[in-house]
Amino acid sequence: MSPFFEKLQQRRLKTDSFLCIGLDTDPSRIPQILANDPDPSFSFNREIIDATHDLVACYKPQIAYYSAFGAEDTLLATIEYAEKLGVPVLLDAKRGDIGSTADMYAKELFERFRADAVTINPYMGLDAMQPFLDYQDKGIYILCRTSNPGGGDIQNLMLESGQTLYEHVAEQAAVEWNANHNVALVVGATRPEEIGRIRSLVGEMEFLLPGVGAQGADIGQLMENGQGGGLLINSSRGVIYASAQSDFAAAARQAADQTRLTINRYR
Amino acid sequence: MSPFFEKLQQRRLKTDSFLCIGLDTDPSRIPQILANDPDPSFSFNREIIDATHDLVACYKPQIAYYSAFGAEDTLLATIEYAEKLGVPVLLDAKRGDIGSTADMYAKELFERFRADAVTINPYMGLDAMQPFLDYQDKGIYILCRTSNPGGGDIQNLMLESGQTLYEHVAEQAAVEWNANHNVALVVGATRPEEIGRIRSLVGEMEFLLPGVGAQGADIGQLMENGQGGGLLINSSRGVIYASAQSDFAAAARQAADQTRLTINRYR
Repeated sequence: MSPFFEKLQQRRLKTDSFLCIGLDTDPSRIPQILANDPDPSFSFNREIIDATHDLVACYKPQIAYYSAFGAEDTLLATIEYAEKLGVPVLLDAKRGDIGSTADMYAKELFERFRADAVTINPYMGLDAMQPFLDYQDKGIYILCRTSNPGGGDIQNLMLESGQTLYEHVAEQAAVEWNANHNVALVVGATRPEEIGRIRSLVGEMEFLLPGVGAQGADIGQLMENGQGGGLLINSSRGVIYASAQSDFAAAARQAADQTRLTINRYR
Repeated sequence: MSPFFEKLQQRRLKTDSFLCIGLDTDPSRIPQILANDPDPSFSFNREIIDATHDLVACYKPQIAYYSAFGAEDTLLATIEYAEKLGVPVLLDAKRGDIGSTADMYAKELFERFRADAVTINPYMGLDAMQPFLDYQDKGIYILCRTSNPGGGDIQNLMLESGQTLYEHVAEQAAVEWNANHNVALVVGATRPEEIGRIRSLVGEMEFLLPGVGAQGADIGQLMENGQGGGLLINSSRGVIYASAQSDFAAAARQAADQTRLTINRYR
């Protein structure tokens, strides 16, 4: 098991939590009370982290919410702040490109932004993922079956072999791509029967399950189907935007703890 | 046809060139003569652009070569410099994510970096591509069959329908995803028979063909198979690193013109 997954497992035990909070911090949704801070997005993230860190296994900033606004410094400061408090950070970037370029993306995510783990896209094949997989101490979450409405457009295509594309990706990830024991899968929480199908194919592999909260996944169903390996269950907007008022941090804590406890009821 | 493809067609006519130069500017490969400039990567790009702009249809910076080093300002300055000289810019970023995040990526590429066109990844389905497709005046290049050695790992999987995955992506792009007439395909120049297969499926659609130069594609074969619609043929390392010495810009011009003329011999 890669050092990242060991760290994550320790963190899950310590916090009694499978919850991952997505820091998809949209500058247009920062509460008014922070508007005059020097960096309102960082103030927001810091307050969310202060209010929730003892309840979470991991934070997952989505890089586009920072790069769209030239806020790379905010992203790095947020990652460093979370790690100072002992919380691992999964940087959601869904990169994928030919080897020489993938080297640069891996450098961006692991060296510039110091992420503990990342998401990547499998469409370009193994050699495009290899520069990420070569970071043996990190966690590499490969997109398998995503939570968005059109996730099935490509991923659910039926192959000649009798498997869907996402099933093939799951099997390849488990059998061919995991030589360094640092691979995990992104499996949308909104599709419980598919979570179960993937779990049956890959054994104990780690999953990131996004789609709880704003995207409406049923926690009982996803727990029933996902158990049997490490889980990170992500909620972004449902936690960080629980209130738009000055009580936003307390509201985020309440939403996070409620989600954590709901998850734990089904463990 | 989207305004981008009209602009591109005008540019191809004016320069008598299908050549696209990839500005994959690796700081470790900048010639010594520029080492003491305030921003060696920008100096390098500016000299390459000065030396080649009358020979090219388009420039294609790869975003990872800038973001890995915190050089977003260099990227923006490069894009603005190319556009000041009248050359369209295709920003190679291969993004793809759920709708709310894809909005942010589209904002990053089109608004922050002012790209005329971008590359995106189809694995997450139509709703993940829609925020890009909604920019009707831009060019949206969807990955179809990529030029890297493992490009076939996923893209060449045979579907139950009797098509490969890349053929399915090509057809969907032409039939379902192109409502705004701003879609093009990325088709690796290293696979001539697959270029021909895709051309037969999608009619006159625009293609970006990467893989000439360092990746070794045969220009005669790709031209034979790709004709019938707009083409952009990309060389990155084969042009920009034609010489590592102080004559790098002149050498890049020579490599670019040679590639342009070779392409034109087969038109």
